[in-house]
Amino acid sequence: MAVYTDIDDTTLAAFLDAYDLGPPLAFKGIAEGVENSNFLLETPSGRYILTVFEKRAKREDLPFFMGMMGHLAAKDFPAPLPVPARDGNPLREIQGKPAVICTFLQGMSPRRPSLEQCRELGQALGRFHVALGDFRMRRPNDLSISAWPTLWAGRAAEADALSPGLASQVDGDMEFLKANWPKALPGGAIHADLFPDNTFFLDGKLSGVIDFYFACSDFLAYDLAVCLNAWCFERRGEFNLTKGRALIAGYETVRRLEPRERSALPILCRGAAMRFFLTRLVDLAATPKDALVKPHNPLDYAERLGFHRQAKSPEDYGA
Amino acid sequence: MAVYTDIDDTTLAAFLDAYDLGPPLAFKGIAEGVENSNFLLETPSGRYILTVFEKRAKREDLPFFMGMMGHLAAKDFPAPLPVPARDGNPLREIQGKPAVICTFLQGMSPRRPSLEQCRELGQALGRFHVALGDFRMRRPNDLSISAWPTLWAGRAAEADALSPGLASQVDGDMEFLKANWPKALPGGAIHADLFPDNTFFLDGKLSGVIDFYFACSDFLAYDLAVCLNAWCFERRGEFNLTKGRALIAGYETVRRLEPRERSALPILCRGAAMRFFLTRLVDLAATPKDALVKPHNPLDYAERLGFHRQAKSPEDYGA
Repeated sequence: MAVYTDIDDTTLAAFLDAYDLGPPLAFKGIAEGVENSNFLLETPSGRYILTVFEKRAKREDLPFFMGMMGHLAAKDFPAPLPVPARDGNPLREIQGKPAVICTFLQGMSPRRPSLEQCRELGQALGRFHVALGDFRMRRPNDLSISAWPTLWAGRAAEADALSPGLASQVDGDMEFLKANWPKALPGGAIHADLFPDNTFFLDGKLSGVIDFYFACSDFLAYDLAVCLNAWCFERRGEFNLTKGRALIAGYETVRRLEPRERSALPILCRGAAMRFFLTRLVDLAATPKDALVKPHNPLDYAERLGFHRQAKSPEDYGA
Repeated sequence: MAVYTDIDDTTLAAFLDAYDLGPPLAFKGIAEGVENSNFLLETPSGRYILTVFEKRAKREDLPFFMGMMGHLAAKDFPAPLPVPARDGNPLREIQGKPAVICTFLQGMSPRRPSLEQCRELGQALGRFHVALGDFRMRRPNDLSISAWPTLWAGRAAEADALSPGLASQVDGDMEFLKANWPKALPGGAIHADLFPDNTFFLDGKLSGVIDFYFACSDFLAYDLAVCLNAWCFERRGEFNLTKGRALIAGYETVRRLEPRERSALPILCRGAAMRFFLTRLVDLAATPKDALVKPHNPLDYAERLGFHRQAKSPEDYGA
C-alpha cells in the first residue's frame, strides 16, 4: 500500500509517447498493491492503472501475468487488460523499471464479504479457471509446498513469540503436509492470491479481479482452498460453514469438482493457510516497527491452521 | 504522501448515505497531501476527492478552508468545491475524524515549472487574490514571523549538522527579519503554500489549485514571495530571474503591486524562505530515518536564504 517510484510530469509524458492514448489529463499515485507502485492515469481515451514493478517482481515472470490478464479480458472475464504500446508490447520501462498500463475497473472491495459475495466469488473463480482452460503459458508456484521449509527455517522463536507453543504445531503441520500433499489433481493457471481486496463488486456482482502477480500454474482446487481461507473465516479462526458452502456451490455452478479434488480440500486448505502464515511471518520480521505500511498479522493464519488441523472431511468446508 | 485512515466499503457506504451523490463506484486511497488522507471517490454523479483531516488539522480552522474553496469555486477559480451533504454542510465525520468531499480537478502537477508555467501561475495568483477580495473570514497565519523563534529554538546544532556555519547565518536572518518585517501592507486571504505540486496544468493553462490547508490571512505580497521561492529557483539556490520576472509580470496583469509591496518583496522572500526552512528542519528531526515518506530537504531553503541575504532590491526578483 504505497508508491515506491516517483514519476514526474515530464517522465510520464515521455513514457506515454510510446502509446496511442493521448496526453495525460490526471495522474495520481494510489495506495493499492503491496509489491508494486500503482498510479491512476487518465487520458482522453479513458482511465487506466499504471503499474510499476518493484524489486520483488521477476522480469521473466511478467509475460505470464500479461498473457493471463489478456487471455481473461479477451474472454470477457473482468480482469484488467494490459494496453499494448504502439509497438504491440504492453510491457515497457519507466525509470528503469518494468511497467504496464492496464484498463481501469470500477467497483468496491469488500472488507467483510457477505454470504452473497462469497457465492459470487466462488462462481467467478469457476469462470476464471474455465476461461484459462486454453491458456498455454506456465509458471511454477514458487510459494507452494517445496518453498515452505525454507520460509519456515529459523523462525520457530518468532512463531512462539506470537503464540507460545505455535512453533511445534507448525512443525507438525509441515510434516503432515509433506506426507499428504496431493501428487496429481486437475491443474492449470490459478490466481493464488484471490483475497477480497483483490476483487471489486458493483451492485452485488463481481466487477473486477486484480493483482495477478502471484498467479501461477498449480492445482485448480488449491485456488479454491486459498479463497476458502481468505473469504470464509470470521475472527479468531472461526470457519463460517455457510459461507464455505456458498463459495463452493458457486464454484460448482461453473466447474464441478472431481471426487479427488473434493477429498483433497482439507489438506489444500491447510497448505494454503500455511503459505500465508509463513509469508506473513517473514514479512513481519522484515518490517520496521514504525513503518507506515503495517504488515498483516500472521496469527490470523495460525488460527486458521488450528481449524484445518481439526477438520476431518470436505464436508467440514461445505463441499 | 500517505493514507493514514483506513475506510472500508461499509463505512464509506454509510458515510455517503448523508449525501445525494449515489453509491460508490470506485474508491482508492491516493498519495497526495502530506498532512491528511485523500481518496479518489467515484459515484454516478461524478468524481470527487474525499479528504480526511488527520491530527495536525485543527477543527476550528476547517470552516475557513471550506469557505475559501467555496468562495473561489463560486467565482470560477479552479479550486475544488466542497460538496455539501444533504444537511447543507460540507464538513462531516468519518471514523471519528473531520472529512470533506470536494470536486475532482483534472491536470498534471509540474515538477520543474517552465517559464510559461511561472507566468501562468503568477496570473492565477493574481486572480486568486482578486477573487478573495470580498471573502470575509479571517484566520491568522500561525507560521509567520511570530512563530519562527519557537520553531528555531534549540535547533542550531541540527542546522550546523546540515551545513557548518548555517546556524549563525540563520540567527542573523532572524534578527534582520525581526527588525525589518513590514508592519502594514495590503492584506487578505492567501494560499501560503502554493507550490508546483499544489497546482495542476492542462494544455499549458493552470487547471487547478489544491491543498488549502495552510491558507490564512496575511499580506498578499507574502503569497507572491512564497511562489517566487517555490517556482523560480534552480538547484543550489540559484534564482532564475527570467522566471521571477514572468511570475511577477503574470501577477501584475491581474493585480498591480503597490510601491510599498514591491519594496517589501526582498524581505518577504527572505521570510518565506525562513518559514519553509524552519518547518522542514522540524519535520526532518521528527521523521524516522527509515520512514516511507521522505521529508523535504531543509538545505534547499537554506540555499535560498543565501540568495535572499545578498539581494538588494525588488529588481533582483524581477519586479
